[in-house]
Amino acid sequence: MKARVHITLKNGVLDPQGKAIKHALFALGFDGVNDVRQGKYIELDLAESDPDNTQAVVEEMCKKLLSNTVIENYAIEIV
Amino acid sequence: MKARVHITLKNGVLDPQGKAIKHALFALGFDGVNDVRQGKYIELDLAESDPDNTQAVVEEMCKKLLSNTVIENYAIEIV
Repeated sequence: MKARVHITLKNGVLDPQGKAIKHALFALGFDGVNDVRQGKYIELDLAESDPDNTQAVVEEMCKKLLSNTVIENYAIEIV
Repeated sequence: MKARVHITLKNGVLDPQGKAIKHALFALGFDGVNDVRQGKYIELDLAESDPDNTQAVVEEMCKKLLSNTVIENYAIEIV
C-alpha cells in the first residue's frame, strides 16, 4: 500500500524557511502574500496490504523518525 | 484564499533524502518499506480572493521560485 504523510510545523512555531519564501516572492513582485508555511511531504510504498495495519505502522514511523512531535504535526493518508 | 502546493521530484530523478529515510526506517526495524520519496509541502495565504486568479498566481510562483521544473513537478490545490 502507499501512504502519504504531511509534516507541518505546529501553530506558533517560527518558520524561517516559510519567511524566506515569503520575502523571495515579494522580491519577485508577488505582493499579495500574507503568510507562507513550509512543511514536508513523504510518500511511502509499503509491502503491508491491510489499510488499518498500514495506518498503525506509518503512525509509529511518524512518532519514531519522520516527525519531531514537540514542534511538528503529522497527517497520514493511506492510498 | 489559501493554496497548498506539493512539490515532488519527477520519476527517474534520484532522491537521496528518500533513500536516507528508507535506510533509517530499516535500521529502526521497519522492514516492509519498498520505497520512500520526499517532497515539499507549502501552504500559502494570499490576499487574492478569486479562485481562478489565485490558481494563476500560484502557478506563476511555482514556475518562478517554488519548484525547479527541470527535476520537479508541482501540484496546486486552492482551498
